[in-house]
Amino acid sequence: MAETDLDALETAAATAAEEEQLDEENRLKPEFVRSVHEALEDKDDGRAYELVEPLHPADIADLFELLERDDRRALATAITDLMTGDVIAELNDYVREDMVEALPAAAVAEIAEQLDTDDAVQLIEDLDHEDQQAILAEMEPEDRAAIESALAYPEETAGRLMQRELVAVPEHLTVGDVIDFMREHDELPTEFWEIFIVDHKHHPIGTCALSWILRAPRHIQLADVMKRDQTLIPVTMDQEEVALRFQKYALISAAVVDENGRLVGQLTVDDIVHIISEEAGEDALLLSGAGEGDINEPIRDAYASRVRWLVANLLTASVSATIIYLFGGAIEQLVVLAALSPVVASIGGNAGTQTMAVSVRALAMNQLTRSNTRRILWREIRVALANGATIALLIGLAVALIFFSWLGAAVAIKLGVVIALAMVINILTAGFAGVAVPVMLDRLDQDPAVASSVFVTMITDSMGFLVFLSLAVASGLVG
Amino acid sequence: MAETDLDALETAAATAAEEEQLDEENRLKPEFVRSVHEALEDKDDGRAYELVEPLHPADIADLFELLERDDRRALATAITDLMTGDVIAELNDYVREDMVEALPAAAVAEIAEQLDTDDAVQLIEDLDHEDQQAILAEMEPEDRAAIESALAYPEETAGRLMQRELVAVPEHLTVGDVIDFMREHDELPTEFWEIFIVDHKHHPIGTCALSWILRAPRHIQLADVMKRDQTLIPVTMDQEEVALRFQKYALISAAVVDENGRLVGQLTVDDIVHIISEEAGEDALLLSGAGEGDINEPIRDAYASRVRWLVANLLTASVSATIIYLFGGAIEQLVVLAALSPVVASIGGNAGTQTMAVSVRALAMNQLTRSNTRRILWREIRVALANGATIALLIGLAVALIFFSWLGAAVAIKLGVVIALAMVINILTAGFAGVAVPVMLDRLDQDPAVASSVFVTMITDSMGFLVFLSLAVASGLVG
Repeated sequence: MAETDLDALETAAATAAEEEQLDEENRLKPEFVRSVHEALEDKDDGRAYELVEPLHPADIADLFELLERDDRRALATAITDLMTGDVIAELNDYVREDMVEALPAAAVAEIAEQLDTDDAVQLIEDLDHEDQQAILAEMEPEDRAAIESALAYPEETAGRLMQRELVAVPEHLTVGDVIDFMREHDELPTEFWEIFIVDHKHHPIGTCALSWILRAPRHIQLADVMKRDQTLIPVTMDQEEVALRFQKYALISAAVVDENGRLVGQLTVDDIVHIISEEAGEDALLLSGAGEGDINEPIRDAYASRVRWLVANLLTASVSATIIYLFGGAIEQLVVLAALSPVVASIGGNAGTQTMAVSVRALAMNQLTRSNTRRILWREIRVALANGATIALLIGLAVALIFFSWLGAAVAIKLGVVIALAMVINILTAGFAGVAVPVMLDRLDQDPAVASSVFVTMITDSMGFLVFLSLAVASGLVG
Repeated sequence: MAETDLDALETAAATAAEEEQLDEENRLKPEFVRSVHEALEDKDDGRAYELVEPLHPADIADLFELLERDDRRALATAITDLMTGDVIAELNDYVREDMVEALPAAAVAEIAEQLDTDDAVQLIEDLDHEDQQAILAEMEPEDRAAIESALAYPEETAGRLMQRELVAVPEHLTVGDVIDFMREHDELPTEFWEIFIVDHKHHPIGTCALSWILRAPRHIQLADVMKRDQTLIPVTMDQEEVALRFQKYALISAAVVDENGRLVGQLTVDDIVHIISEEAGEDALLLSGAGEGDINEPIRDAYASRVRWLVANLLTASVSATIIYLFGGAIEQLVVLAALSPVVASIGGNAGTQTMAVSVRALAMNQLTRSNTRRILWREIRVALANGATIALLIGLAVALIFFSWLGAAVAIKLGVVIALAMVINILTAGFAGVAVPVMLDRLDQDPAVASSVFVTMITDSMGFLVFLSLAVASGLVG
């Protein structure tokens, strides 16, 4: 009892300490980060250790990310025995890679051996082949074999992500047998949520949540409590697809099978939540042309991915510039056309971006399929009609009123009508392109989030200038 | 054994049937959706039932979303006994609301009673107060009380999302006691992954994963296998915050506590994955000004959220238009300025959007905090310098070459230098604004995803025109 009280006291102390370090949104406080930085500056490793010790591993990982690069390495040296697998697993990929590269191979191998296969793979998969080999050479043969076979699968597939550690039992056991089996075997994973039932060829035939086992009497047959209907993940399945299955079927864990249908590993939802978040969040970054958009990405990589996109936009912008240039005579006659045409292009671009964001998200979530494309296209066109009418009315009236006294009633009204009409046409075009472009890219097996923006923006920009300036000429505003 | 074989056969049959209905990306095939539509058109309820019966509940939910509105109601009538809680829980909010409104209160109450509290709340939370009351009146007092107390919490908080059903036991039990307790109690949740240990005031003091219980001998004290350090979720915590905690600490389930620290419910990760995906995905939609961006949202709502944003952009675009108008004299002298200035504005806009997407994502993931704002700002400025230099070189050379023979060497080169300089300045401005605007909005407790675009685009657009046209005048290109 005395021990328990002590434990409780320790927990209370830890919680109080945590509160000192975290703000109300669960982020490390800047003062705390600064005091760690100062301790490292002063080479006071003891003080740094004391500060970091009460933190949760996920917060230690956050601390590394918040510190400058030099501080990271100093901290890693100061708190070696707090650098557990949980900390490593939670680290940002770039930060981890940078730190792993700084450590001797033997030290990395030692860390890797504490980890589950999936985390160990993550630790070394981004390293050079040579560094990988050096680390693997330091590891126990069994661990090395597991990691090597995971590395044989392509990146971002189930084979890379899965844990090999799992509980698989034959169907003929009773609930009591299973419990005894689990009590006796020490090499089982530390945490698991379901067990898998396999036939004599090691093909999965069912799963059983631990709660069903715990609630059934010992004599009940496993076959009577297990669920036969289950989602099997092929070892080559892409992680995006895996994340969608976990979401759709609300899975906690799932069996991974090889090409012969044999059970080779399991995926658990705690590893998948990162991927769900990453895959859902990356669309905003891809749509904007920011590539991976990780703030820890080296500047060289960020430059490479972003500048490509800017150059593409430079090319599409030159299409618009050419159109404007062709209407140079009209602009010389009525210079206000130069001021108004970018408005038509810009609002069209915004309307296109809205529809495109909606379509890309719906495609990613498998909500927009061949079955309802026509309906969604029609829906977006109706939204565009309503938006176009509103904006056209506003800008038409505003233009007519503003230029009434400067240009005279006839010209001002004509200009208002021309810009209103151009706006409706461009917003409708935007609505159409915002669905059609992503859908077409998807059918061509391209990621719609990556390439849609370039096309949609080019369409709305050039249409905006072309329609507005053509209408101005056609209406006789300029000759 | 004969029965087991039969089960296996049935499973094989179901799997084969599923394969006929789903394409390789796990979406319902258009032909399948069409045959359900045709059965409903022919009023052949039997055929519709046959088609839908082999589907997983999540796929039945998808089917409803893919069908037209009239078909949805017809299908619901045709397959009443397949409309389980799992189907309802998986339905899109708008589709569910629409269907629930079409059903009589007693039927909704019957469905709600089969569901866990959290799913039942989801079923009725979006209805009018009157409709809610009519449904609650039809329910058993106990279920009604649970739903009413959940509805008393604000939307999108832990109190709304949590399940009241959980296993909580006192600390002094042994592992054997806990197993016996679970075997004897029928009213426990059907699936659970952890049990909660509480003190005599019902305050949670620890958790225990079921795998730890299963692997420990019966005589071991619960206190010796449980984990005292746990993440408690206050009942009023916002769902975005909840989703971040689940991700950060890789939680499978978590205890929800009221203001007195008493255990009142649990959250499980299978309910949270939807929120993680929603919260991560919504930034792309919010940044584009598409509001919720759900393809099932009524057109009226989609119009309302999008037009607001277009009007805001109309106002910011008029700032740019005014700037151009003020330089009307310069443009009349050298009409090519009208063609080139939108290019400067547009590339600046793109660069700003890239940086903004990165900052918004980093803010949402708690990666960008007061501790590293300055470092990230400096990082983005260096990326902007590299991007700006590249783009400036390209456009400067292109402009000088293109206009060499038309405008003469001196003017063409000057124009090239002017646009190159304007481009560098605007891309730098974009890099600065792309970090500063979201960070400032975040510090003012505004969602940076919602409002950043308007400001950043306004800054890059107006700066683009202003800098380019001013430099053109200052350089003596135009007088």
